[in-house]
Order: sequence, then C-alpha cells, then structure tokens
Amino acid sequence: MELNVPRGIDDVDPERFEAQARVRAAFESVARAYNFQLMEPASLEHLSILRAKSGTAVDQEIYSFKDKGGRDIGLRFDMTVGITRYVCSRKDLRLPAKLAASGGIWRYDEPQYGRYRWSNQWDLEVFGPPSVEADAEVIDAGAAILRRLGLTETVIKVGDRRVVEEFIRKQLNISEDARVVELMRALDKVEKKSPSELKEEYVAKGFDERQVDRLLEFGKLRGTPDAVLGRLSELSLSTMKELGTLGDLLDSRNLKNVEYNMSIVRGIDYYTGIVFEAADVRNPRLGSLFGGGRYDALPKMFGRPDLSATGAAGGIERTAMSLARGTSAPRKLVYVAIPGESTLGAALKAASALREQGISADVPLVLKPLSKQMEDASKMGASWVMIVGERELKSKAVTLRDMNSRKEELLSLEDAIGRIEKA
Amino acid sequence: MELNVPRGIDDVDPERFEAQARVRAAFESVARAYNFQLMEPASLEHLSILRAKSGTAVDQEIYSFKDKGGRDIGLRFDMTVGITRYVCSRKDLRLPAKLAASGGIWRYDEPQYGRYRWSNQWDLEVFGPPSVEADAEVIDAGAAILRRLGLTETVIKVGDRRVVEEFIRKQLNISEDARVVELMRALDKVEKKSPSELKEEYVAKGFDERQVDRLLEFGKLRGTPDAVLGRLSELSLSTMKELGTLGDLLDSRNLKNVEYNMSIVRGIDYYTGIVFEAADVRNPRLGSLFGGGRYDALPKMFGRPDLSATGAAGGIERTAMSLARGTSAPRKLVYVAIPGESTLGAALKAASALREQGISADVPLVLKPLSKQMEDASKMGASWVMIVGERELKSKAVTLRDMNSRKEELLSLEDAIGRIEKA
Repeated sequence: MELNVPRGIDDVDPERFEAQARVRAAFESVARAYNFQLMEPASLEHLSILRAKSGTAVDQEIYSFKDKGGRDIGLRFDMTVGITRYVCSRKDLRLPAKLAASGGIWRYDEPQYGRYRWSNQWDLEVFGPPSVEADAEVIDAGAAILRRLGLTETVIKVGDRRVVEEFIRKQLNISEDARVVELMRALDKVEKKSPSELKEEYVAKGFDERQVDRLLEFGKLRGTPDAVLGRLSELSLSTMKELGTLGDLLDSRNLKNVEYNMSIVRGIDYYTGIVFEAADVRNPRLGSLFGGGRYDALPKMFGRPDLSATGAAGGIERTAMSLARGTSAPRKLVYVAIPGESTLGAALKAASALREQGISADVPLVLKPLSKQMEDASKMGASWVMIVGERELKSKAVTLRDMNSRKEELLSLEDAIGRIEKA
Repeated sequence: MELNVPRGIDDVDPERFEAQARVRAAFESVARAYNFQLMEPASLEHLSILRAKSGTAVDQEIYSFKDKGGRDIGLRFDMTVGITRYVCSRKDLRLPAKLAASGGIWRYDEPQYGRYRWSNQWDLEVFGPPSVEADAEVIDAGAAILRRLGLTETVIKVGDRRVVEEFIRKQLNISEDARVVELMRALDKVEKKSPSELKEEYVAKGFDERQVDRLLEFGKLRGTPDAVLGRLSELSLSTMKELGTLGDLLDSRNLKNVEYNMSIVRGIDYYTGIVFEAADVRNPRLGSLFGGGRYDALPKMFGRPDLSATGAAGGIERTAMSLARGTSAPRKLVYVAIPGESTLGAALKAASALREQGISADVPLVLKPLSKQMEDASKMGASWVMIVGERELKSKAVTLRDMNSRKEELLSLEDAIGRIEKA
C-alpha cells in the first residue's frame, strides 16, 4: 500500500528551527538570570480549565475533544492558564513564585501572518502579593530577551486597565459595566481602524459623538512615561499612581525603550491592571513580540484569591522571524573525507575525536570517490575537510584543508583539532 | 464563579524540568557534533499518516479526533513518522539526510513507570541509500548522548531482524509469514516472561516443543559482537554479514559497551534490519533509554521506495530519571537585598548589572525587613547576598556576603561581580 501523503501541518524545517532555537536559548538564559524557575505545564487540560480565562467563547478557538474515557479535554492555547492552575494547587510554593515555561500552544483559528495553528510561546509569570515591582520584573525580563537577541529597535508599550476604566467612568460619565467594557474594546481597535470608522461604529451603538471623540483622543495619549503621566494628572485620574511607580522602577532597571500608551488594553475579560506589549519598530506588521499584564481574576477562579498574578508571553515564531538573517555565528563544520575502505577505521576515530571535543564533524556514510566527497563537503558548508588516507596513516597525521583559503597541511590529529578550535 | 480545579495531566515541575533540560541539552549538542540538522515535525498529523507505521491498531493508542473541519487528525505518538513524511516530501534534500528532533509525543495508554501519556522524545534519523554506516552513526550518536550525561553504566543491545527471520525459516523450517512473525513476537517477550510460560503459550499456538526450545535458546544468544558472530556463523546464517560490518564500525568509533543480543527484535511490523536498544545497567526496570533500527518500509509507504531509513529515539523523562541526583553543577545565585525604599533604584541597577553578565540574580519584589530578606535568600539557596543600602551607596560600593563562609566585604560593584564570576 502506498499512501497519498498530505502535507504536514506546520513542520518546523531546519532553517526555521535554528532561528527559533536562538529565541528559546535567549529566553532560557534570561529566565535563569532573573531566577525564574523553569517548568512546563501539561499540554492537555480539562476543558473546564481552558474555559476559566474567557468562558465557553474559547471553544471556537481551541482544539478540544472527548478523550476515550469521555472526558472533555483540549490542547493548551497558552501557558498562562496551566501555570496558574499549577501554582494555585501548589500551596507549598514560596511567594512570590516566579515561574517560566516555553513550549507549543494550539489555536484553532485562521492562520495569520506570523501565527500558526501550532506555535511556540515563552512565558514568565510572577504570583504573590500584589506588587508593581513584579510587573517591572516581567517587563524587564521580556525586554532582556529581545536585547540578548540583538533586537534593539523595539518599543514596549505600557498601559493600565484601571486608568482607562477610571477615565471612562469619571470623564465620560459611563457607569454601566457592560458599556464601560464596550468602550475599552474601542480603544483596542485604535491601531486597526480609522477614527471615523470607530466613530460611526460606536455612535451606532448609542454612545454620543463627544464621548467617542474624547475616548479616541484619550487613546492617542502616548509618549515617554513622564509626558503621559503629566497628561493623566491633568485629568486627575487617581489610578495613575502605579504607572508612576512603574516608570521609576523601569528607569532604575535601565529600560529606556518604554512608551506609555493609553490605547493598550489587551484581552478585555482577563487583565486587571498594568498591561503591555512589545513591538519590533522596523516590522510592526508582525504584531507584538511579547505582551502581558496583571490578571488577578484567574487565581481567584482557581480558588486562590490570596494570589495576585502578572506575566508576559512571547511568540517564538514571530520573534524568530524578526531576527535578521545571517546574524547567527557561522558553524564550524569539519568534513572527514575517507579516500578508501582501508582507512575507514582511522577516519572514524578522527571524527569521534572531533565530536568528543564538541566540534561538528560529518563523515561519508556511503563511500564514494574523494572528488565527490569534496563536493559534498562544499555543498554542506564545511569550513574544513580532514582527509584520512593511506599517506596520512603512514605519517600518523591527517591532511587539513581550509575550504576558504584552499590551503592544505599535514598535521597530527591533535594539532589539527587545536587549529580548528582556535579558528 | 470558582472552579473545582482538577489536577493537571503531567505538569513538569521545576525539579523534573531541570533534569530533562540537561538531557535535551546533551541531545542538541550531540546532534550538532554529528552534523544532524535539527527540525521539528508537526505535532498534529492526519490520521492516515499516523496509521502508516502500524495500521488502524494505532487508533487505540493515540489521541485522535475530528477537527472542526471534519478531518481525522491525531497527536503524534513519535517523531519518526512525521520526520519520515517530511523527508519523503522534500525531494530537494541532499542524501544522506540526517535529521534530528526533540519534543512532546502523546500516547493514550495506561501510564507505565517512567512513561507518561504526554512525554518527550529525542530522535535521530538518517535517510538515503542503504548503508550500515548509517546504523553505526545513529547508534554512536545515541551512545554519545548518554556518555555526555555521565551515564557510563549502560549497554547497547543490538540485533538484526533479518538474522532472526533467517534462523526461523532455515533452522526451524517455518515458511508461512504469519507464523514467522508469531515466533519473532515470542523473542520480544524473552525478557518479560519465563521460558516455561513462553513454551506453554507457543505450544498452545501449535508450534512443536523442539521449535520453541530452539528459538528460546537462540534468543539467549548474547555477548560481545565477536562471540555472537562466532555462534551465528556456526548456524551458517548468511544474513549475519551486516552485523559483522557494524561490529567493526562501532569498534572504530570507540564504542565498547555493545552487546549483540538475538532477543532484540522490537516493533514487529515496522523494523526491517538492524535493531538496537540501550539500557541503564543499574536500573533495568526503567526500560530502554533509547532504541531504534532500520525501517525501510515506511519511506516506501510515503512514496519513496528509493530511500532507506534508520534512526534512534530516546525517552527524555526516562533518561532524566536515570541521572543521579545532585550531579548537575550548582547554580550561582545572588540575592540582591534592599534595606529600604531609598536605595531601591541603586539595588535594581546592581541586579541588572549582574543579570547582564549572565549571573542569576533575584531581588525582593515586595519590600520587607532585611532579616526577612536574608531568610528568603537562604531558603532559595543563594550563594551570595549583595546588600545595597545607605552605607553602601555613600561609599559607592556594595556589601557582598558569602552565604557559606558568612563573611561580608565592602566592594565596588565591578569587584563584586568579578569575585562572583571567579568563584
């Protein structure tokens, strides 16, 4: 039987993999530097858990099914829900608990540019007493990940849901919760729709023109922390205090690419305080490289009203896409050529010695003429060819050919390894 | 609303995660040293692909479901099927193609000791012309992963399906394919059941006692490659030639912990040549740390009869379990203590400097008395506490307290960092 083979759903091929591996390595090293504990929450969750964040609306966006025991389960769509469930059940953890995870997430929606049905996220979360220091910690760590990847032209946009809500209630005189939420949703659309579109849409929903105008004006409030804080104090919004503290903390942490931006509200039914999003200035079309904020409601749903929570999650594919090509260090690959059967054993020993030193070495797995082997070496991008033939065997040496300079030298194996390591 | 929170399905907690991270790091570094290309096949596959390896029998053992578009899909249960599908569709790949992957796999069976419903595997595969050099390459690389983890008391048991089949056909005079397969299955049970149990079982299936005796005798053939090859040549089995070549190749590659073992047959409907399994000698109950072999039938099913394939897959959880506790390098953690609000900024700057140098540093996210901070530092296993208070600020210095010797010193931040890096 021969199958009609459908294409794979989102294979990560070697070129994409290497870029993603760089993002993962940067994430792990930053997580360790900031003393987050790395873990991984379950990939499959009970559906009731996945619904905790935004209710049954989530069903349309996830892979869920009945397992063979009749239980409703689904694939995780982020890491936050699972980590929060985990932390809430581990009453023995010291607080604040700083946890980090990276891995696959699954969303059943139409693939967007830079967004796959199966993709990978990194995640940093802090649970404990409410503290704006914790928000500063996750924003700082997220920024450090991008910096470590050489992504310097980025901006971290910061807002606060409480400030937006106070503005809507106090300045626009809207008191009904559902109406407040509707206007917050309008702010979330500021970067996607034109002011006139939004105005038309919200006037049709029964808001008066002046309310919508003032809201859109408010949504345009963006700039340095000091500049935005100045404008907020003119509006006498008492909830701006935490943004003030956060600005000082981020400044102490040497974070300069921070923009306060009142249109940042993020997932409406989820976040409860400071929210943020990081973008690549050169490529805004990619969407956020990471985002997050405070979400005190979720631990409460998992039975832990004593825990406050804040965190950041970043897209590994998106971030990999924004890495400049060719910025990774070139690999040192040695191709060990084998002129004939008689020196196969010696050549394999040489390859083993290279590999034990952590040097990438390839050997022909099918013997072929030396000229063909040289071609293979060149095609796979080897920096050196090490030839182990009869002549070399007799002089207890190897020939090392530098593929750039095309120079060859007869050296002892140890000297050849030293040469490669130094290069 | 507050949820009744079910326990997570297989969360990987921080302690387990660190051991698994070591296994993954060893895998990645070996894959690179052997010049395998790292990639990751899709996590979700069309059910028809997942069935390619062993037919609809697999349905009972995997997570499969209809997606919202009515397509039958399932979660991968290994990496081999996906990598093979990928390679078979990439007609542009240079051969032999050496691919490596690690990641989650899902099996819907009763959890065994060291085996979870969701677990992680590493995987090395070589596709190209048939060559026993390729089998040697994956066995050697698999062994290198264990070696790099300090797992030296391991044994790699090697067999060959063709040799077993020739023995059954020629020496036991069994010609019907289904009957041959039945006896191969008996060999697979040699380590799980007693000879008398097996004898009873297979006599009941209609084999004569002498056939079963001789088979079990054959299954006991194990020892150094030379010893076993000697016995096989007495049985004049012509298919033993590749095992002979493999023995020489593994010897050239300095692999000494190889046992030839005729009871190793592995997945009956799948492997087609050399097969192998690596075990931890100190803890055989764990099962194989890695296993694999040649599987030429699968590429053929995916429309590539021109490709031969061989590979190895290892259990990341199992291997992590066999790592001795406390063998990982102790972490250097610095706790940056903040005596009071007035030096918060300076302390955060110090923490940032440490973290930028790649040194793990933690800072209190909620201010508390210094004595409490010292307690926290001790509980989280910090090696040093760096105190940034008024006194330190005035002398443009920090106090570095060594938590082991309990000695304190007033140093410049640069000197303190140097001290920590050298330790």
